[in-house]
Amino acid sequence: MANKVKNDAITSRDENFAQWYTDVCRKAELMDYSSVKGFIIYRPYGYALWEMIQAYMDKKFKETGHENVYMPMLIPESLLQKEADHVEGFAPECAVVTRGGLDELEEKLVIRPTSETLFCEHYAKIVNSYRDLPKLYNQWCSVVRWEKTTRPFLRGSEFLWQEGHTIHATADEAREETMRMLDIYETTARELLAIPMVTGKKTEREKFAGAEETYTIEALMHDGKALQSGTSHYFGDGFAKAFDMKFLDKDNQLKYVHQTSWGVSTRLLGAIIMVHGDDNGLVLPPRVAPTQVMIIPIQQQKEGILDKAYELQNQLQAQGIRVKVDASDKSPGWKFSEAEMRGIPLRLEIGPRDLQNGQCVVAKRVNGEKLTLALDETLPEKLATLLDEVHDEMYQKALKFRDEHITDVETYEEFKEVLDSKGGYVKMAWCGDEACEVKIKEDTAATSRCIDTQAHVDGVCPICGKKAKHIVYFARAY
Amino acid sequence: MANKVKNDAITSRDENFAQWYTDVCRKAELMDYSSVKGFIIYRPYGYALWEMIQAYMDKKFKETGHENVYMPMLIPESLLQKEADHVEGFAPECAVVTRGGLDELEEKLVIRPTSETLFCEHYAKIVNSYRDLPKLYNQWCSVVRWEKTTRPFLRGSEFLWQEGHTIHATADEAREETMRMLDIYETTARELLAIPMVTGKKTEREKFAGAEETYTIEALMHDGKALQSGTSHYFGDGFAKAFDMKFLDKDNQLKYVHQTSWGVSTRLLGAIIMVHGDDNGLVLPPRVAPTQVMIIPIQQQKEGILDKAYELQNQLQAQGIRVKVDASDKSPGWKFSEAEMRGIPLRLEIGPRDLQNGQCVVAKRVNGEKLTLALDETLPEKLATLLDEVHDEMYQKALKFRDEHITDVETYEEFKEVLDSKGGYVKMAWCGDEACEVKIKEDTAATSRCIDTQAHVDGVCPICGKKAKHIVYFARAY
Repeated sequence: MANKVKNDAITSRDENFAQWYTDVCRKAELMDYSSVKGFIIYRPYGYALWEMIQAYMDKKFKETGHENVYMPMLIPESLLQKEADHVEGFAPECAVVTRGGLDELEEKLVIRPTSETLFCEHYAKIVNSYRDLPKLYNQWCSVVRWEKTTRPFLRGSEFLWQEGHTIHATADEAREETMRMLDIYETTARELLAIPMVTGKKTEREKFAGAEETYTIEALMHDGKALQSGTSHYFGDGFAKAFDMKFLDKDNQLKYVHQTSWGVSTRLLGAIIMVHGDDNGLVLPPRVAPTQVMIIPIQQQKEGILDKAYELQNQLQAQGIRVKVDASDKSPGWKFSEAEMRGIPLRLEIGPRDLQNGQCVVAKRVNGEKLTLALDETLPEKLATLLDEVHDEMYQKALKFRDEHITDVETYEEFKEVLDSKGGYVKMAWCGDEACEVKIKEDTAATSRCIDTQAHVDGVCPICGKKAKHIVYFARAY
Repeated sequence: MANKVKNDAITSRDENFAQWYTDVCRKAELMDYSSVKGFIIYRPYGYALWEMIQAYMDKKFKETGHENVYMPMLIPESLLQKEADHVEGFAPECAVVTRGGLDELEEKLVIRPTSETLFCEHYAKIVNSYRDLPKLYNQWCSVVRWEKTTRPFLRGSEFLWQEGHTIHATADEAREETMRMLDIYETTARELLAIPMVTGKKTEREKFAGAEETYTIEALMHDGKALQSGTSHYFGDGFAKAFDMKFLDKDNQLKYVHQTSWGVSTRLLGAIIMVHGDDNGLVLPPRVAPTQVMIIPIQQQKEGILDKAYELQNQLQAQGIRVKVDASDKSPGWKFSEAEMRGIPLRLEIGPRDLQNGQCVVAKRVNGEKLTLALDETLPEKLATLLDEVHDEMYQKALKFRDEHITDVETYEEFKEVLDSKGGYVKMAWCGDEACEVKIKEDTAATSRCIDTQAHVDGVCPICGKKAKHIVYFARAY
């Protein structure tokens, strides 16, 4: 690959994955640190990625009948304390406001770590009858959770997310909603981000604070570690009882509502980076890439080159392709390297010789492959097709990697051996006892990622020898 | 107007404007109160309005080269204190975080009241050369300012807004940007919200904390009070010096950048309500209305009625019209009243007789006028045209009201008389001395809204008798 310039500025993935990750975050200009630990700046390129995800998901949410709202940023401490499991889960992570204006506050206010309690309080006020149900609300906002160890996008004291909160007349409807949103998350990962997820149910130990059941999508990173990438919770009527959310049903009985919540966050940016990235930087799946094609003029000072570049830009834009021309005064090699670092799916080179021959060179970021394409009216459609092909290639590549890193084991020795030798998911029978889960974590640092709810359960738990209740995906995780 | 049902649930505008306003906010389900004073819940209908404004403006921002970013929610106290005027302006309104997780913080953190300081710190880090300029960043977020007296959308302890922050190589460029954004604000108000603004420059006393110059768009409410609806600030190099934002220019000299910031907030929702609303509730300008046409079936249980309603919905949607069918089991009169309260621009009635006659009845929310239109293939386009006409009518109505409420006066007696008899803007010559501005405020509760920068200045200041420097719009204001 003649024109490929190795980005020496970044650490190699296999040398030091954590450093590689940070290097990509910084050098691709996705983020920067602020002066408060754990609070990052989403730079234009990183925020544009989040905007792409938002636009895609927001459409899906609205198509399935959800409405956006905005709840206050601050929660009175007493409100947060209304549901026992919930407050226990979040209290240690809260940022607390004690002064407002020039006064000490009578009641301390917590910056939302999540907004269940606010939605519950509001729902209790506005819902009276079965006619008012379901309520399908979603909120895009940032939340604050005070974290000791933070990493860009993966774990931060503040992060951007969406949180859906719905209430329903029946448990069945609420369960259906929980699974519908899990499905939207899984589809979004596959269709938009080219990431194959493992989906399943969290164990009691790993479920959300206050939920009856938590479902998850888990992505596998290049280093063999899992990343929880989205969760969908079924609450039953636990919060309804704590917050007195009742409605008069058709049968004239007062009943508690059944509830769900579900969320994905800017963690998805971390998943994109660590699933697809390589030693030259970011590799973006085409559908989420803010810029899908970067046109790089060669010898741009020569007559007609820049004109042609802008003409191509217009043609591609008309086809619905997100395209830019890099007309800066940097060298083509420098521009190539920058486009690679930023993971732009296709690079289109156009120089005097190309112009003469009525062609251009298109390079695929994912594998460096180069194509020579005619500069005719078929080009925009060809590139659109090529972008879809790139998406499929990236998905298949990630799927192959994931599938090669799911290992069924029957003994604990095997479990530990696989975890250390190749990492990834280790699938094993489990008795359902938290003690065995804890032992695994203490011994190996692996946690249960999720229960495979589809699996046929047989045999015994290798830890305690009791009859198995579940087949579980274990992995070391972010 | 036969079918008009007076919404007795709300106070009349002329009886008690403040109560009318609150009634509309609540009954149109735009917002609800939370348990923390000054922090409101943006309900789906209110948030949808904000989303319409966001979508419209975000497109304009991007077309003019701006990029979105996201800065941390929390600002270290020491950072906020770096620019003297700025901290003086905001310190009394800050919400302060003193505890994070289980620990007392070493340095207190302020929830952003505005993010100048964060942008400055970041720009200082990432800008080195003239090649890095301009930086044209914008952020959509919520901010917190501890307010004693709060009113939904108009003044809250938390509100949603956008804040643009740009830096430039020269003062001229920055000034140009300041005016460009003011123009985008004024255009948005006119084109999207059907609100004619008075634009101009703030006096020294009324300008933004830290700015050299502040420009404003001011809307006139039905009760004759003004509402500051958006501001655009030129900072010069004041912040640049405080934050050491320097760059190496083409001439190899280190120079300070020149800076702007500009913002509009959910206050615009308050403007929409108070400019256009009437005694039956909200009246929404068509382009910002989340639902533009509400189809209300009459005798919907009769065969073919609902089918036709949904068929019409599809046809109108295909024309790009935002349309809903109210197929609930409420009476048509109730549905009419609800659609009115929510300010839906057009109501389309379709019943058995209409179906027979191949026609439907369309009622305009703005004036109750009814049209009988043929149910043929021309209907969608006719309605699209009608929506544009409604926009124009609403704008002209608001413009007439505004122009009738701008009164030129030459004496202070006249000033006071006009203010008390008809309200609105009173235009008067002013010496430029803050003492005269303060006296006017103390005597009349009117403040200088803005300087008419286009006006020919002549005569003397009626307060002190000194030579006039400016022609100023004064008004009582929210």
